[in-house]
Order: sequence, then structure tokens, then C-alpha cells
Amino acid sequence: MAKKLKGAALRRSSGRPRAQGAGGPERCRGAAIVAQSGGPTAVINSSLAGVVQESLKHDEITRILGAKNGIMGVLSDELYDLGKEDPASIEGLRRTPAAALGTCRYKLKEDDYQKILDLFARHNVRYFFYAGGNDSQDTCHKVAMLAQREDYDVRCIGIPKTVDNDLAKTDHCPGYGSVARAIAIMTMDAGRDNEAIYTSDTVKVMETMGRNTGWIAAAAGFPHETEEDAPHLVYVPERPFVWDKFLGEVQNVLDRLGRCTIAVSEGLREADGQYITARTSESSKFFADDFGHVQLGGVGDMVCKAIEHNLNVKARFNKPGTSQRASVVMQSKTDAKEAYLVGKMAVKNALKGQHDKMVTLVRESNDPYKCVTGLVPCAEVALAEKRMPAEYINAEGNHITEAFKDYLRPLLGDPLPHYVRLRKLPA
Amino acid sequence: MAKKLKGAALRRSSGRPRAQGAGGPERCRGAAIVAQSGGPTAVINSSLAGVVQESLKHDEITRILGAKNGIMGVLSDELYDLGKEDPASIEGLRRTPAAALGTCRYKLKEDDYQKILDLFARHNVRYFFYAGGNDSQDTCHKVAMLAQREDYDVRCIGIPKTVDNDLAKTDHCPGYGSVARAIAIMTMDAGRDNEAIYTSDTVKVMETMGRNTGWIAAAAGFPHETEEDAPHLVYVPERPFVWDKFLGEVQNVLDRLGRCTIAVSEGLREADGQYITARTSESSKFFADDFGHVQLGGVGDMVCKAIEHNLNVKARFNKPGTSQRASVVMQSKTDAKEAYLVGKMAVKNALKGQHDKMVTLVRESNDPYKCVTGLVPCAEVALAEKRMPAEYINAEGNHITEAFKDYLRPLLGDPLPHYVRLRKLPA
Repeated sequence: MAKKLKGAALRRSSGRPRAQGAGGPERCRGAAIVAQSGGPTAVINSSLAGVVQESLKHDEITRILGAKNGIMGVLSDELYDLGKEDPASIEGLRRTPAAALGTCRYKLKEDDYQKILDLFARHNVRYFFYAGGNDSQDTCHKVAMLAQREDYDVRCIGIPKTVDNDLAKTDHCPGYGSVARAIAIMTMDAGRDNEAIYTSDTVKVMETMGRNTGWIAAAAGFPHETEEDAPHLVYVPERPFVWDKFLGEVQNVLDRLGRCTIAVSEGLREADGQYITARTSESSKFFADDFGHVQLGGVGDMVCKAIEHNLNVKARFNKPGTSQRASVVMQSKTDAKEAYLVGKMAVKNALKGQHDKMVTLVRESNDPYKCVTGLVPCAEVALAEKRMPAEYINAEGNHITEAFKDYLRPLLGDPLPHYVRLRKLPA
Repeated sequence: MAKKLKGAALRRSSGRPRAQGAGGPERCRGAAIVAQSGGPTAVINSSLAGVVQESLKHDEITRILGAKNGIMGVLSDELYDLGKEDPASIEGLRRTPAAALGTCRYKLKEDDYQKILDLFARHNVRYFFYAGGNDSQDTCHKVAMLAQREDYDVRCIGIPKTVDNDLAKTDHCPGYGSVARAIAIMTMDAGRDNEAIYTSDTVKVMETMGRNTGWIAAAAGFPHETEEDAPHLVYVPERPFVWDKFLGEVQNVLDRLGRCTIAVSEGLREADGQYITARTSESSKFFADDFGHVQLGGVGDMVCKAIEHNLNVKARFNKPGTSQRASVVMQSKTDAKEAYLVGKMAVKNALKGQHDKMVTLVRESNDPYKCVTGLVPCAEVALAEKRMPAEYINAEGNHITEAFKDYLRPLLGDPLPHYVRLRKLPA
């Protein structure tokens, strides 16, 4: 069913790196599809706005279509004509969280790729923009490879998106700066709350997202400047979680301050690689009920129960959940701007003949912060997972380093809110 | 030990209502103590700023002292001289969450009241400003009564403060508008997230604070305007929680929209008055493990497990916890202004001879919103709990009414963020 093309068009879409615009690629005229994938973010709609606004500027793109619920809408031929949207709505996407087209976590089957290409041919789709994480870049790459095999000229460009910040080959990921800002502010707030009411609620645990990497939990650590400032401890999955060590570290903070605010990543694992929420007999001694019947709401809940049972103080957790990744009020302006930029650059690069590439963010300088976009073959990003480098985690494995703060600071956008501390001179 | 005074001063401090400033009370000169109690809020420091700034204007108040950790600091004589703070820090309190002096949940013992009065006499304290909920107004009242019995001239004024909004005799409570704004925004965000990724994460539950009243959960319901808008269901403790009914209502929303965002109060109870988290054999059938071993992280976790077990869809919860009540980024400007005002008015009323009263907020008109302060005897607020009136909860007991929205709207300050919705015209 796929319409066969050949020659130059095919060669132009090969996976080999190639300079942008070099050789003046032939114009390729047809529809574009944009789709959003995986977990929503505060700025993936900014990328969508960038794609749509840029696409509408160019004659080569005859229609800009949005797929309902990511690749699922491509498979089911559920496409929206985004050219018919009110331009004010497209601009308003830049202040609208989550994913306006809908996303999915659908795992593609082998014969799905052919279906995608068939749909492309049916609608004369010549541009495919897919915003997502490493799974999505893999999808983008596989569609690109099949198109190449079938001699169908389409330019597939990946748009990086993930709050987890775990994509390879890009300095950081759109979505991360905003979740980082949100979790940093929420942790500051929870820390001030803990500081105020520690005589009753002594330990506060912030459970952050982040899957197998600690980027978000680490961002929760950013507001810690003086000993007083929360969070006092930060635990990331890049280091194995050891219960004895953890409880000792909490007790140390309690001895010093009488309170403790802790950030923990949802993806913490013990030394054997098991998630700490997957209860092992090894860790069961840290809980009240040793019979294996305890079911926990997650890492925050579990850590609180261990603290209460072993250190005999009250511990409560906050789990902002999806509210941390979908906050426009706490959006990073830098993140929103960059997300918009990668959307636009996806279109511009496709029009220059780029194919099977993901747009990257390249930090040219940190102070002043300067960031431009680059390109990387989708295959180099697909399924890879970038963990935090060792230099961003302190030697004790219980907090972040200044090097990480330097990395994160510009991504947060405006400075974090400033809260005062009284001098508290005795009367 | 308490210094005895008598005559006019004593009579002026009776609990009888009396017009402000009527009769021109004698000047009373001495120190003032201000203390913060109970759960922190986003604006209790605004009240503190109001008290301090107003106190510093008046010669009658020789020193303005802050008690460390609420009444505990009064008992232990741990007082800060707030007159020695940098005025910029005092002003900065208006943008600093939680409770800068520290709070407590200490339950006073019978002989503590005498200790308090002894400390007052020792420091020549003639003004006592106590910001807190109904427990704190009770404390304020008991101190006032003892002072009266002992003929010690002190003006005790309660400052309303609670995110729970459950104080009697005041239209609303400082702290509520801000938590309401925060939880409304977080629920909007979580709702948009749920709407984007419902093919994978089908149900989203927001667990809100609020203890035994539904004011905060109800505020989470505010952003619901069209059928699309989250939250689709809202459950408050004012109505008994019935599992069968609840699951049926969730299924109805799923049938209609394919997804569901739900706000639940932490204080939900079954018909027999038991918290739903206090597992009864009656409710155990709604859970996977019928042996009574399931321990839950809270209402959100429990409700999700029931949905997953009975409706066979994925359900996840957000529990913003203390991050909802301590957010300055999401602070309501109206709330912050009113909290500051009640702090100032506490001082002004004390200087006019008022005693054993709590400052109230009196809504004079709703559109345009106009709110002034009043006074009520502390005894009428002490230990009382204002629940949501029936007219604020819909007939089905699963959402709020327009009447509640009208009540809440002005308290939220600025309008909530506006998010766009695409028209989604088929290609």
C-alpha cells in the first residue's frame, strides 16, 4: 500500500549523520503528523505549539495533523487538523500543561510499523514529529528505517521530552526544568512546614518521580543551602539504598536539628537491584509487621514506616505525583522556551532534509547560560537511559553536589522564591 | 506569683460583647507576646507580620515578643525579641510560608495555665496574640479566664488560622484561600495529566487535607466547569462514604469519558462514623487481600486499590500533603491580605480594650467582594468545628454546588490559570 519513491529521496533519508541543509535537499511536499508520547510534562504543549506554528509557515507542509494519543492515533487513523485550530489556542498551549493531543504508553508490535507507513502513504504524510522519551525515539527510528527500506520519502524527527531527564545525547530534556522547579519549590515549602511543626511532625519525606534515575529527586535537593534548609537528605537510585545507613543518617540529622526533611526517588533500589518497595526478607526487619503482609503506597510511605518503627518519631510523606510534572504555575520559563524551540527546530531541520534524528539541547555556556539545539541519530537515543554522573552525588550518597547545582540552576528559569528567616534574638 | 491588679482593668476584660473602643478604655502598657499554633499555612506569617508591624507603632506595647513553637515557648520562657528583627525580614514574612516562630500541637494541662500567667507577670506581658485553630482559641479563652480570676490585666486576642476552614463564627479562615487555590490548581494539573494519559493511567485520585471537614476537598472541585474538566467526583467527610455507591459513580464516569479524576478528603468516614482507612470487615470485600493485613498509606492509596481491584483499571494517587498548605507560589492574594489584616486588627482591638475575643472575617458582599473584620468571644469558637453546609454539596454527595463556588471564588484571589482546549477537528 505504501507509495514507492526512489533515488535521491531515499538516499536523503538515510540514518548517516549529515550537515544540516548541506547539498540543498529537494523540496518534499506533503502533510505532517505531530504526536505526543509517554508521561505528560508542563511544556510538551510548548513543543507542540512550536511544531504547529513553524509548520504553518511553510508551503512544503500542506497540512499539520495531530495524532490522538500518540502513536495509537496514527495506528487508528485518528488525526486532528491542527491548521483549523484558533491560532490563539495554539499560542495558549504554551501555558497549558500535560499533552493536548493525548499521549500513550502503547508498546508497538512488529507489524505496527508497516501500518504506520501505510497511513503515511494514505495521507501523503512526508513529515513525522514525535515528542517523547527513549521509547519514542526508538519508534521514530524504526519508522524511519522501514520507510527507507520501502523507499518512502518521509522525514522523521524526534522531539525530546521527559521529566525524568534520562535521554542520552542531550544536555537536558524539555520537561525537566519545570518538574525540577516544581519539586524544588514544593520541597522548600514542605521543609518550612516541617521546620515549623517538628515538635509534632518530626520527619517529612518528599517522594519524587524519576523512575530509574535520580534527576528529579536531586532537583528536590537544590534549595538546601545552609544546614537549616530542607532537604537535609536526598536519596537517588544511582546509589544502592541501605536501610541501616539511611536510618543512621536520619538519626544524625534529628540529633542536630530535631527534625528532618528527606527527598526520596520513587525508583530507589537495594544493593541487589530490587526496588525497595519490593519487600525482601532482608529489609523486612525494618518494619513493624514481619509477616510479609504489609502493602505500601510507595517509597515515601515505606520510608516513613521504617523511620517511625525504628527511630520512634512521627514521619509523614508528601507525594505530589503528577502535580509535580504538570504545573504551569511552577513552570520554568527557560524550559518552556526551550521546549518551544525544539518544536520549531524539528520542523526546520526536517525541511532541510534531516531524517531519523532527534533534536538535542546543547549547552554552550553556563554563566551566562547559553543553549542551542543540535541533532543526533534517533538510534543513539533509543532505549538508552542517562543516569546521574557520579560527580553530581555526594560521597556519602545522601545529597547532591555543587556541580549538580551548577548544572541545574539555569534550567530552573527564574530564581526560586526567597523566604526569610528571622534572627530570633532571645528576649 | 502573678501580679494582682484590680478594678476597671479587670472588668474591662470580661467576656461580655462590647462595642470596640466604647467608653475609652484605660491605656494598658506592657509587653506583647505573639505565638503561632497548629498546622502551618501559607499566610500565618502574614498575620505575624501584621501583629509585629502594628505593635511597633504603639507606645503601649513596650516590646513585641515571639514565642518559640507556640504555647510551648510561653511555658518554657523561650521568647524572641521581634523588635530587633530587620524590618525587611518582618515584611518578608508576608511571602514566607509555614510559621516563622514555630508552632506546636501541645495539649495544655490544667496547671499550665497558671504557668502562662506567671510568665506574663514576670515579663509584664499585657497583650497576648495567639494565631491558631479552635484548640488555640480555647487556650486563649482559658488564659483569659484565669487572668480575670487572678485580676491580672492582659488582653488576649485570638487570630484565626487554619487551612481546614472549620472555625465557627467567621465567614472563612486565613490560610484557607491559599490552600484552596493550591489544591484547585494541583487538581487542574493532575486532571489535565489524567486526560492526556488515560489510556494508560485511567484514574487519578487527589488526596486532600481537611481533617473532619470537606472544605479543602471541595476546593479541589472548583475547577470543574464542563464535563471534561477535572475533578469529575469529589468526596467530603460531611457525607458518609459508601463503597458500592462510590465504585458505581467512578464506573459511570469511566463509561462516559474513559478516565476519571477524583478528589477525596483525608477524613472520609463510612456510615458508622469510622474512618475509611480504619478497615472494617464490612469494607474489606472491596480489597484484594481479605485477611485484614493490608496497611494503607491513606485514603488516596486505599481508594486506588479499591478501584483497581473492583473496576480493573489502573488508578494512581497524588498526595500533595503539606506542600498544599505551605505554598507561597500558589498563595491567594486575598488570603494573604486578609491574614495580614487580622494580625493588625488583633493589635488594634487589644489596644481598644478588647479581650478574650477572636478576630473574625465578615463578608459584607460577594460581588464585588468586600470583607471586613469583626470580633467574637473566644469561647464561641473554642473547640467548635464548622462543617460544610448541605447547600454546598450536591444531592448525590459526589461533588460541589454552584453556591459553594460562589462562596469560594473571591477567596481564591486572582482567577485560576486558564488552560486551552483544542477543537480537535478530524483530519
